Amino acid sequence: MDRVKLCFIGCGNLATQLASAFAPCATILQLYSRTEASAKALAEKVGAPYTTDIKALTRDADIYICALKDSAFDEVLSKGDFKNKLLVHTAGSMPMSVLASYTGRYGVIYPLQTFSKNKTVDFAEIPLFIEACDGQTLDYLHSVANLISGKVYRVNSEVRGKLHLSAVFASNFSNHMYALAYELLNGSGLPFEVLLPLIDETARKVHSLPPKEAQTGPAVRYDTNVIDKHLKMLADDPQLADIYKLISTDIHERG
Amino acid sequence: MDRVKLCFIGCGNLATQLASAFAPCATILQLYSRTEASAKALAEKVGAPYTTDIKALTRDADIYICALKDSAFDEVLSKGDFKNKLLVHTAGSMPMSVLASYTGRYGVIYPLQTFSKNKTVDFAEIPLFIEACDGQTLDYLHSVANLISGKVYRVNSEVRGKLHLSAVFASNFSNHMYALAYELLNGSGLPFEVLLPLIDETARKVHSLPPKEAQTGPAVRYDTNVIDKHLKMLADDPQLADIYKLISTDIHERG
Repeated sequence: MDRVKLCFIGCGNLATQLASAFAPCATILQLYSRTEASAKALAEKVGAPYTTDIKALTRDADIYICALKDSAFDEVLSKGDFKNKLLVHTAGSMPMSVLASYTGRYGVIYPLQTFSKNKTVDFAEIPLFIEACDGQTLDYLHSVANLISGKVYRVNSEVRGKLHLSAVFASNFSNHMYALAYELLNGSGLPFEVLLPLIDETARKVHSLPPKEAQTGPAVRYDTNVIDKHLKMLADDPQLADIYKLISTDIHERG
Repeated sequence: MDRVKLCFIGCGNLATQLASAFAPCATILQLYSRTEASAKALAEKVGAPYTTDIKALTRDADIYICALKDSAFDEVLSKGDFKNKLLVHTAGSMPMSVLASYTGRYGVIYPLQTFSKNKTVDFAEIPLFIEACDGQTLDYLHSVANLISGKVYRVNSEVRGKLHLSAVFASNFSNHMYALAYELLNGSGLPFEVLLPLIDETARKVHSLPPKEAQTGPAVRYDTNVIDKHLKMLADDPQLADIYKLISTDIHERG
């Protein structure tokens, strides 16, 4: 395979991480962002030119990788010219078919990870979920995805949607539980760091046990003594008390 | 300090892990459990005698470590003889004062971790929160706790209670988010393992960023497009949809 030539459309967290991962093994021809500051920052990071005018995008790339937020897709893509070009998106919950109105060649590369702009992640271990308009394009995307990750899976839009929903629970919602713990610990004089070995072990445990079997604590034992004490402690924050009640009930009922 | 002599009251997950951690550096004189099978299993593991009769407990130990569940405390302890003996409990949400009716010397060693019987944990990194009836006993418990962990903190019962509540969110509730993700992925043909790099990175992130700043996903962006899609996918499980709604709202409102 010749060195692949890429354009990135969007310069947010995901584009930043993906472009950084591809930079050593692909040619990043050009970047586009509506926001000059984002475009410039990523352009400097990966040593590529940028534009804020989608009509000025080069026609010479092998793949155009769209990493915009879902709601910005049409506004940006409808103004560009992707005819006969391979256009892929990177979103969990958008069906591949949304790209069909811009070009006849399209696909998806969805990396299952939580990305922050300033925290580099190791792509080698990140599963990439790919889909394409036809078998030849799918094989091509597979080889390109393999440049950065050893874990490439072929899934359709429906499975990718389920995966994204699962990921919201496994990552965004578990992170929110950390955020609530952080808030609860605030004012006790103890730093959040004391919770880190617990957080790490909780994550480590599900490598060897299904999460249901790994569960511990008052809810799974349905220890109403402790649960009632906790609800009293949360009395001045009714929404937090509701979250406690609902999750405890759910742990007990599905346990 | 002479080699410390310990008795364990209760042989559940916590007692198993704690006795195993102390076994190389303390003498485990005797174990007690109401359940013969649990007592026998732990006795074999740490090479100590056991009893299922609390009245038959030796009077020769330096510390009696009670690792019963909260609701069993009084039933068991009131039948034993702990007069003038040092009795400590290991519970997050029980005030130290519950022990005052059994002896004049008491305290707490609370390890902040999630314990399963068959998964050994490395105590060296586990924070232990201690409390005692007087300064001399506190110093003594500190030196004993230091035998197994380098991270010993002195906190009162109120702070320990807050810590336990925080831990329920950080561990039990985040683990339940994993369990729900597991259930959602079921039937998609993808193994739960594809979520592990995401789960690990989510935990790793809060080592360097406060959880609120680490948050990503549709709720923090309040992307109603995606949220509505997800709620439709959860329509046949109203309680799960309620959890999704409540946590998403809370992420957005506290964000």
